[in-house]
Amino acid sequence: MPVGTQAGVKSLAPRDLLTELDARIVLANTYHLYLRPGHEIIQRLGGLHRFMSWPRAVLTDSGGFQVFSLNALNKVTEEGVLFRSHLDGAPHMFTPVSTVDVQLAFGSDILMVLDECLPYPVSHDDARRSVGRTLRWAGEANRHFLQRRSSFGAAHSLFPIVQGSMYADLRRACALELLELDADGYAIGGLSVGEPRNLSLEMVEATAPLLPLARPRYVMGVGLPEELPEYVARGVDMMDCVLPSRNARNGCLFTSAGRVIIKNARYLEDAEPLDRECACYTCRTFSRAYLRHLFQAGEMLFSTLATLHNLTRYLDIMRQIRQAILLGTFPQYLNNARSRSATLP
Amino acid sequence: MPVGTQAGVKSLAPRDLLTELDARIVLANTYHLYLRPGHEIIQRLGGLHRFMSWPRAVLTDSGGFQVFSLNALNKVTEEGVLFRSHLDGAPHMFTPVSTVDVQLAFGSDILMVLDECLPYPVSHDDARRSVGRTLRWAGEANRHFLQRRSSFGAAHSLFPIVQGSMYADLRRACALELLELDADGYAIGGLSVGEPRNLSLEMVEATAPLLPLARPRYVMGVGLPEELPEYVARGVDMMDCVLPSRNARNGCLFTSAGRVIIKNARYLEDAEPLDRECACYTCRTFSRAYLRHLFQAGEMLFSTLATLHNLTRYLDIMRQIRQAILLGTFPQYLNNARSRSATLP
Repeated sequence: MPVGTQAGVKSLAPRDLLTELDARIVLANTYHLYLRPGHEIIQRLGGLHRFMSWPRAVLTDSGGFQVFSLNALNKVTEEGVLFRSHLDGAPHMFTPVSTVDVQLAFGSDILMVLDECLPYPVSHDDARRSVGRTLRWAGEANRHFLQRRSSFGAAHSLFPIVQGSMYADLRRACALELLELDADGYAIGGLSVGEPRNLSLEMVEATAPLLPLARPRYVMGVGLPEELPEYVARGVDMMDCVLPSRNARNGCLFTSAGRVIIKNARYLEDAEPLDRECACYTCRTFSRAYLRHLFQAGEMLFSTLATLHNLTRYLDIMRQIRQAILLGTFPQYLNNARSRSATLP
Repeated sequence: MPVGTQAGVKSLAPRDLLTELDARIVLANTYHLYLRPGHEIIQRLGGLHRFMSWPRAVLTDSGGFQVFSLNALNKVTEEGVLFRSHLDGAPHMFTPVSTVDVQLAFGSDILMVLDECLPYPVSHDDARRSVGRTLRWAGEANRHFLQRRSSFGAAHSLFPIVQGSMYADLRRACALELLELDADGYAIGGLSVGEPRNLSLEMVEATAPLLPLARPRYVMGVGLPEELPEYVARGVDMMDCVLPSRNARNGCLFTSAGRVIIKNARYLEDAEPLDRECACYTCRTFSRAYLRHLFQAGEMLFSTLATLHNLTRYLDIMRQIRQAILLGTFPQYLNNARSRSATLP
């Protein structure tokens, strides 16, 4: 899922997402949009889809992750999390119930429950206590969500989030308890917080098999291009990550032949397209030399063209994976991907 | 002409210029592209059209204006102008001959002669001496250009530039002398340098009627939307200006109902399109509230959508003018435009 933090994937227009990328869903951030322009305003303007002119699915996070990562001044109680706006310092509170209401005001297709996001590392005891709170919050959020959903049908889904830091026993216990909510899909959160990569994969391995096969399993905040098949191999259906768009803006481009750091002098006169195997507008229209020139000149157009490519690369990988699964050749795909990624820059 | 300083109209891809704006020609800056990536590199990559993936016309200025405006350390001699790169301080020289060669390396469709650009105000004596130099340079450039053009046909044109500061007698004398070059088109330069608006129009009035009716007359570096019909009324065919794109990035939008400063709180919940009379992607897709949100959030997408609109507005005005001329109704169009612009924000 391309990340559209502020109700827009950075530097791309929705028509690019539709016609070039054919993205099915984008993620927007509850924390940012709650603070600016505010969920009531977005609701009065017809909801998030209409506001950002995006006709397909929108998933919104609960805002919890941003509260914990952007706010040194947050305070967690049993009731919810108190924080100060990073924009003007004003105090706000997110509760399991309020974040459902905010996301329903957005008109999100997939809502996420409020969860407590822990830093890495934490002790087993702290993680256990936190999982308890996350579970109670998920229950509260789910009850409120089902009550509100009954008044407007089943057009929205609420996904609970498996937490438990890097402790497989806590992850498993959390997952099993969340199953009782019988949710439309489940997320695995609290990863990509600084832990080594094998630990993130281990936590997914410990958790994903416990979650219902017939419902989407979503790992939040991952990953690198070479990690996508690894997560899928562990049973994951959905991922989101700022890496393809953020790295694009910084001049790091993901290609089928590995990473291209576009500012490198070797691209100064390189008339080749960025990625010969890519059919995106950027690759079918411009040379590496031109992209490098735009980057060096600080032209915004670089960000647009680079983001378009990197997101295409990510979605192409996911499309290849989907096709391999349908053809029954995913094990070979995974092996090939592993041996290739070992040799690429 | 949309301005594409660094071989790209800021924040727009060439397909936007082609399919949305239907722009016929863009302007690129010799000074910037000579310094980075360099004209030899652009030539080896197939010329400016191929480099920036732009299939229609390109006009390049001579670089003179930037040398005089970006460089405190320039030194003008009879031979040319010595300056230091604003990027790394390295010394460079532009001569009437060398700037023709640089622009031919770009493969520009319309080249401009090197001219001396004076600040405002200057004395009549200084302006007269400078006009003399500009005329000698134009002659040199033209001789060299004709010699080089003979080897590859008539696919390029070189426009001389009428100078003379704000002195009508010098402007007229300069124009008359340049007529002897029998050029494919003529420019009026040295305006928009800080003089009052009526003086710029006066200088165009004094000069344009002397230039051949059947060849393009180009006023460099103007103007505001309401000024476009004024210049056309004085016989002008071509203009370029950074205003529509630069103001777009700063949140100043030109609409058929006047200026919109998008950050104003009145647009916070404004569900209307930016300009009901505009058919650009921005106006047919987004609300003012969303555009304001993108601007406030510092999203690059704002620049793209705003630039697309402002340039559409400029080109729409020029298309309306062209149609009015063809229909024989330009005098009424001009009157209407004048009375409307007196009442609009």
